[in-house]
Amino acid sequence: MNHEIEALLREDLRGKSPYGAPQIDVPVALNTNENAYALSEAVRDRIAAYIGAELEHLNRYPDRDATALREDLAAYLGHGLEADNVWAANGSNEILQQLLQAFGGPGRTALGFMPSYSMHPLLARGTGTAFTDAGRHGDYTLDAEYVAARVKEHDPDVVFLVSPNNPTGTALDPETVRAAYEAARGVVVVDEAYAEFARDPESTALNLLAGRPRMVVTRTMSKAFAFAGARVGYLAADPSVVEALLLVRLPYHLSAITQAAARGALASAGELQAEVDQLRAQRDRIVETVRHWGLPVADSDANFVLMGGLADPHAVWSELLDRGVLVRDIGLAGRLRITAGTPDETTAFLEALRDTLRKRPDLFAND
Amino acid sequence: MNHEIEALLREDLRGKSPYGAPQIDVPVALNTNENAYALSEAVRDRIAAYIGAELEHLNRYPDRDATALREDLAAYLGHGLEADNVWAANGSNEILQQLLQAFGGPGRTALGFMPSYSMHPLLARGTGTAFTDAGRHGDYTLDAEYVAARVKEHDPDVVFLVSPNNPTGTALDPETVRAAYEAARGVVVVDEAYAEFARDPESTALNLLAGRPRMVVTRTMSKAFAFAGARVGYLAADPSVVEALLLVRLPYHLSAITQAAARGALASAGELQAEVDQLRAQRDRIVETVRHWGLPVADSDANFVLMGGLADPHAVWSELLDRGVLVRDIGLAGRLRITAGTPDETTAFLEALRDTLRKRPDLFAND
Repeated sequence: MNHEIEALLREDLRGKSPYGAPQIDVPVALNTNENAYALSEAVRDRIAAYIGAELEHLNRYPDRDATALREDLAAYLGHGLEADNVWAANGSNEILQQLLQAFGGPGRTALGFMPSYSMHPLLARGTGTAFTDAGRHGDYTLDAEYVAARVKEHDPDVVFLVSPNNPTGTALDPETVRAAYEAARGVVVVDEAYAEFARDPESTALNLLAGRPRMVVTRTMSKAFAFAGARVGYLAADPSVVEALLLVRLPYHLSAITQAAARGALASAGELQAEVDQLRAQRDRIVETVRHWGLPVADSDANFVLMGGLADPHAVWSELLDRGVLVRDIGLAGRLRITAGTPDETTAFLEALRDTLRKRPDLFAND
Repeated sequence: MNHEIEALLREDLRGKSPYGAPQIDVPVALNTNENAYALSEAVRDRIAAYIGAELEHLNRYPDRDATALREDLAAYLGHGLEADNVWAANGSNEILQQLLQAFGGPGRTALGFMPSYSMHPLLARGTGTAFTDAGRHGDYTLDAEYVAARVKEHDPDVVFLVSPNNPTGTALDPETVRAAYEAARGVVVVDEAYAEFARDPESTALNLLAGRPRMVVTRTMSKAFAFAGARVGYLAADPSVVEALLLVRLPYHLSAITQAAARGALASAGELQAEVDQLRAQRDRIVETVRHWGLPVADSDANFVLMGGLADPHAVWSELLDRGVLVRDIGLAGRLRITAGTPDETTAFLEALRDTLRKRPDLFAND
């Protein structure tokens, strides 16, 4: 970077590197928790038709409040939610950023329980919100007592819970979410990016929204809707939370094309659900197989698995990559994260792992 | 708003209203500086083809760095610019927000010359940057001496210049931009949303970028590309500025569909230029006609005109609306802003204005 520009950069950004997993071109990419299934031709045609109608008046600004999309999202979520309970943006990252702009910011604090979604502390930094990591139990679990105690201790303006959690894969007990809310003075964000993959679909915090105006459930279409390229995140909350975000959102933040594409995908929710079911089956297959081979792994409620028992995770990552399979080294001791793929992709991963286990037993833990 | 939520909102947001022009459904909408021409069927088909190719792998995250789009934008801009000089985001609002996140923020300052683009102070507030309005001469013009003196006086981290300026319509003399840069310690942003409509296309600050690493030229596809609904803004600057924005941009901020749509529109630049030429002609027609009727108006380099000579601008706005024509009351004494429309829309505006002049002469100034 040019020295003159670097000197003008905010002090807290100097010397930092941009966020992001390496975008490596490999036969089997199981590193970013994408949905392994491309949209079918029927779904693509439906989305293209929705978009085509918008192209006719693309010279006009989009509906600033994305009303039709919010109606469709509310209908998809159910739970008695209506359009004024829902807000949408360019990925859940933008939703989370807007929440921090409205309820966090300079002089305010956010609390998270890491390891968890790595963007939470980065979004806090970007909005000037002080982020505290309250940690987890040694086995990376959380319970009501632990969470409530940490929330009371730190009294944050914004609490981040992630359920199912990334990278550990497990959903929170609703009792833990309730306890966090009761202990908190501020906004409690439950990041449910992977909710559709949960073993118990009723574990969602959408069940807890009624009567809890400070609770916000965030979701994304990236995973269950196979829509990572389209960038659509959303939230469900009390209408007052949505009104608050209207004060910080960029005007016309969500393009007419994005709104239309998302509506086309929502109209295809039934068809997409079958692939979610298939991915859940492949996820469980990874859990069972890897466990059978003696590697510790927790049950997962997401579309990925956190595999333990690795003496040298980065070396295992590298061996798998040599075999054409890219997984994620999330920097946790002894662990790698693997996204569930199609049956063929999952087979490729399991074969690459088995081969590595045979040829490089030194890379795995003995106990 | 629920009182519990209002109490949690940042102090500086309480009691505020969301930004935005009223979205009123009228026969002739000349209030938001949109391009009056819908995309032709040929252009829509080209954009749809670009988008269609992306739908096939929409389950994958987009190119985080939008490389192909940036190459196309650089080729469109010319001036020896390459992809690493260019950055793109969801509207120029997001570009400006990223610039303020990187170079402004808490404890830092931005300087603007109002009346100008009303989002600059709002984006500054949203990023915690203190905004100072250095004002303009009484006739709303700026010159090198005035701008340089104000920049030296306030020593801001970010300077906002707008050329052609909104809402006054006039482009800055390149000498004024050069003087601002020489006087400034920080980043100088030249917001050129309306550059393609300038009477002298060579007035662009793109001509000044070489050897000035702190200068940033922002553009949008909303206006000249008839692309307001698609939300694509971009900038040209030293590659170091782009590297700085990589540190604050949300990962995957720009969807694969948006990147593709923009590339389809850029491939249609030649066709779209004809409509820009037509809008410039209608703009000049408004200037000449209104001036002929005795109302003071400056020559415009944008796709809109700032009309003066109104004793009661809001009443004139209302009379025009009664006649089916929506223009913009930007809150400037004696003035209204009118977007140039198609020939028919422009005729409708001029007839509504002539009728109002005849029937309500009391609403116009006498001198």
